[in-house]
Amino acid sequence: MEGKALIEKELTEYLKQFEHHVLYKPISYLLNLGGKRIRPIILLDAVELFGGDKEAAMPLALAVEVFHNFTLMHDDIMDNSSLRRGKPTVHEKWNVNNAILSGDAMMIQAYQLIEKIPVEYQPAIYKAFNKMALWLCEGQQDDMDFEEREEVTIPEYLEMIKNKTSVLIGFCFEAGAILGNTSKEIQEKIYQFGINLGLAFQLQDDYLDLYPKSTKMGKIVGGDLLNKKKAIPYLISLNSANEVQKEKIHSLINSADTNRVEKLKELFEEIGVQEKTEAMIADYFQLSSDSLSGIEGVDLTGIKLFAKKLMAREQ
Amino acid sequence: MEGKALIEKELTEYLKQFEHHVLYKPISYLLNLGGKRIRPIILLDAVELFGGDKEAAMPLALAVEVFHNFTLMHDDIMDNSSLRRGKPTVHEKWNVNNAILSGDAMMIQAYQLIEKIPVEYQPAIYKAFNKMALWLCEGQQDDMDFEEREEVTIPEYLEMIKNKTSVLIGFCFEAGAILGNTSKEIQEKIYQFGINLGLAFQLQDDYLDLYPKSTKMGKIVGGDLLNKKKAIPYLISLNSANEVQKEKIHSLINSADTNRVEKLKELFEEIGVQEKTEAMIADYFQLSSDSLSGIEGVDLTGIKLFAKKLMAREQ
Repeated sequence: MEGKALIEKELTEYLKQFEHHVLYKPISYLLNLGGKRIRPIILLDAVELFGGDKEAAMPLALAVEVFHNFTLMHDDIMDNSSLRRGKPTVHEKWNVNNAILSGDAMMIQAYQLIEKIPVEYQPAIYKAFNKMALWLCEGQQDDMDFEEREEVTIPEYLEMIKNKTSVLIGFCFEAGAILGNTSKEIQEKIYQFGINLGLAFQLQDDYLDLYPKSTKMGKIVGGDLLNKKKAIPYLISLNSANEVQKEKIHSLINSADTNRVEKLKELFEEIGVQEKTEAMIADYFQLSSDSLSGIEGVDLTGIKLFAKKLMAREQ
Repeated sequence: MEGKALIEKELTEYLKQFEHHVLYKPISYLLNLGGKRIRPIILLDAVELFGGDKEAAMPLALAVEVFHNFTLMHDDIMDNSSLRRGKPTVHEKWNVNNAILSGDAMMIQAYQLIEKIPVEYQPAIYKAFNKMALWLCEGQQDDMDFEEREEVTIPEYLEMIKNKTSVLIGFCFEAGAILGNTSKEIQEKIYQFGINLGLAFQLQDDYLDLYPKSTKMGKIVGGDLLNKKKAIPYLISLNSANEVQKEKIHSLINSADTNRVEKLKELFEEIGVQEKTEAMIADYFQLSSDSLSGIEGVDLTGIKLFAKKLMAREQ
């Protein structure tokens, strides 16, 4: 069975144990909204790559998906988002209290799933998982704090998205290496691969918001700029702008001008924002490739292809 | 060092690792508001009772205290409480988002502490902990749902407070037995002891709200009735009342009569609520004692004394 279909099947099976209490309804709802299931797919692929037992790893694959969705449930409250994958968020469909509590339960479910992997791997997995999970909270805190701040530096932003996005991707690769009984050194290399790929992925996400390669019906170009979100093109623009340009950017982003995205894009073109952002993405993608060097004895073709595919999104 | 002082010292030491990020400020704040530290004390006492290594158990003692405080941080949001131990709650002092996120981080910290106990105990501890934690969420969900409901039965209420309060107390005793290398049978008995003691304790809490043994300055008698909280005296009153009394109770509790607590107490006296509540508490206390029978080879004097002390509160 292909990765995504397998995850869907296992998730459906898993959720059946939780039909006895109303607490779990929002959890099934959110998990059934779909999604690309990238994290569990990465984890299972990595297990396979290193010759581990994919079936034994399945609970951990589900754990990362449940955990990821827990973060979505709570982030949606904090970000006051009313839609998730085009459907009402949990706190909209139920209420904030339900979203807090069911989110808490999801985190526990994730830990409970880890119980189900072979006991010899549990200490290493728990350790890596806990570290990752705390970083993720730090990243979310920074993300919220950055919204209140006037200025955010590029290194600060990179650190934030690393914690908010990359560490979980990194964990999925690392966990595959742990379950594949590899050396600490290989675990570290594949983790770094994941971190850098995650960064490239998130930066690309920021990039595509402003420079989509194709335009789907109804897709808004420059949503981040409209929401004054300090995404990477904006931070690069400020970093490279002269004083006059900087002032123009500040005044445009804070204006109600309906053409402000177009006007900002013109300014960004003067500054070379698109090329600079592309270069940064390419750098992190290259860093991720470099992290793979020194991993010997396994066929890296698949993982390299996966990374390329991940980056080939159009919007 | 006496139990509570030891916990305070270890907690202070523990929190020092978390001064690098603003995410952890509300956590230190809440944990430094004090509290009786009943749960970690129970856990360490139980470890000692069964001849386990108290020092090795310390991270787990901290874990239960951190976890308990995580539930307080999130419950305070859900219950819209503005004070905790006489001080502003986290969502009041910071905001709801901070309380959600720092609460999430606390749950992870609790799990991270479990990492620090000897590895051979981890699988059993994780298993018991996860089960307990999910029950606790179910209990909180029921508690919220019961507030919206017209009628709640006594068994439903007992099930709710068991999940919301007793399972964590039960876990603390059980964990002590696990770390003391006892048999599964003893772990189960001491767990049941904790569950029944926890129920007696929570029922006594409800009882003392209406029938305090001493009155401290400023302490409101019958706060639960004023807030229409379906605590056990109220549920017992409805269960034993005739139709006329039932109607009077309903109309009084929904009235704005400033003497409604006194009037309800008079009605309750007719029905024998106080005696019936006392009998129920005594029953659970007896059940907890009974659970201890069959635990041999250890001196149960201390634990019995602890249980008596726990129940000897005056308000």
